[in-house]
Amino acid sequence: MLAPVPLAEIAPPTIASQPICDWAKAHYRDRCFAKDEPIPARPGLLYLVERGAIRLMGMTQTPAPGSRPLSPAEQSEAVLLGFVRAGLPFEFVARSPFHFDAYAHVDGTQVIWLYWPDLELWPEIQQSIWAAFRYQHQRKLLWLSTLGQRRTIDRLVGILTLLMEECGEPWQGGYRLPFPLTHAHLGSAIGSTRVTVTRLMGRLRERGVIVISDDNLIGMP
Amino acid sequence: MLAPVPLAEIAPPTIASQPICDWAKAHYRDRCFAKDEPIPARPGLLYLVERGAIRLMGMTQTPAPGSRPLSPAEQSEAVLLGFVRAGLPFEFVARSPFHFDAYAHVDGTQVIWLYWPDLELWPEIQQSIWAAFRYQHQRKLLWLSTLGQRRTIDRLVGILTLLMEECGEPWQGGYRLPFPLTHAHLGSAIGSTRVTVTRLMGRLRERGVIVISDDNLIGMP
Repeated sequence: MLAPVPLAEIAPPTIASQPICDWAKAHYRDRCFAKDEPIPARPGLLYLVERGAIRLMGMTQTPAPGSRPLSPAEQSEAVLLGFVRAGLPFEFVARSPFHFDAYAHVDGTQVIWLYWPDLELWPEIQQSIWAAFRYQHQRKLLWLSTLGQRRTIDRLVGILTLLMEECGEPWQGGYRLPFPLTHAHLGSAIGSTRVTVTRLMGRLRERGVIVISDDNLIGMP
Repeated sequence: MLAPVPLAEIAPPTIASQPICDWAKAHYRDRCFAKDEPIPARPGLLYLVERGAIRLMGMTQTPAPGSRPLSPAEQSEAVLLGFVRAGLPFEFVARSPFHFDAYAHVDGTQVIWLYWPDLELWPEIQQSIWAAFRYQHQRKLLWLSTLGQRRTIDRLVGILTLLMEECGEPWQGGYRLPFPLTHAHLGSAIGSTRVTVTRLMGRLRERGVIVISDDNLIGMP
């Protein structure tokens, strides 16, 4: 018989990807992307972020059958699904009517790609790639849990906290995101609008929940 | 240089778990749960659904700092994060202030559990467990994408479609969920209320998008 006890969190995996990165460079399977440049999607490919960060965006392209057509503004609504930082893998998921895009979130984002069978050359790295997807699955359950909160401000603080944990760097005794994040992107992640996020971010600053640094980065003390 | 092309979906993995299930039974690591009975959570354990289905629920327990306290109704809001059908693994994620629960969704749900290192006895099964988490990660990206839609009816149809794909059985030329699903659970998954879901489900029935069978199961023709 099992008893409920407190659970430990799994640590984010670290992928010792240097051998793969060297191999990818030797095989012309690496590329450097400028900020906001889309990463071309290919079936069956596994991508690894070597430097920088990837922004994953999702979009559902068709409205419910029988509903009025979406307005152009509604159609253009891509949803921020998260970031993939250096050292973590990602892949493109395809499932009509869903559409995924990945963009370099910062200048100089370096990405390598390979086919899954290539990984068999490095069994240990393969293992840590699997572990990385397991970790990312757990993180997405946390995202879903946060997004289920009714109040927009709770969803906003929840997503900011998750992002700090996933991508943040130590800063003034707390954490700070190492890259800028627009209020429009934040709004899309929490099912809200840019205008609402701007208003709520102001309130969170007043309360000292967040701090905006001089270079426009978001910190949480 | 990569070019954008249409992508294939990864197939849901099938785990040939019979050897593990036999082993778990021999080691008293299996149990049968009644409908809505909670699965006790243990750190470091890996769970495998042998029969039935698991309902994963998530909850965020603290409101944004400085916000008014949550009402009891708001506090009790657990969010449906999805189902784990027979043949797939799950585990408990812990990350304060998040809390996860798993419940047997149908009577006679059979679950086995083991520690990750136990898996090394069966390298092939271990491989398919990793693949299953990769698959579930992809599905959760689809969920997040669907939940980013502004209109509640689009989110509802999106989640129903995803659930049909993940758990549905062939039925009348379409698919049907093999278990009942309350409007309250559906509402929690899409950030809406039971009342709204009831109204929208009525509209979807009128349009023929969904069919409710005699035994109260949801089908999509």
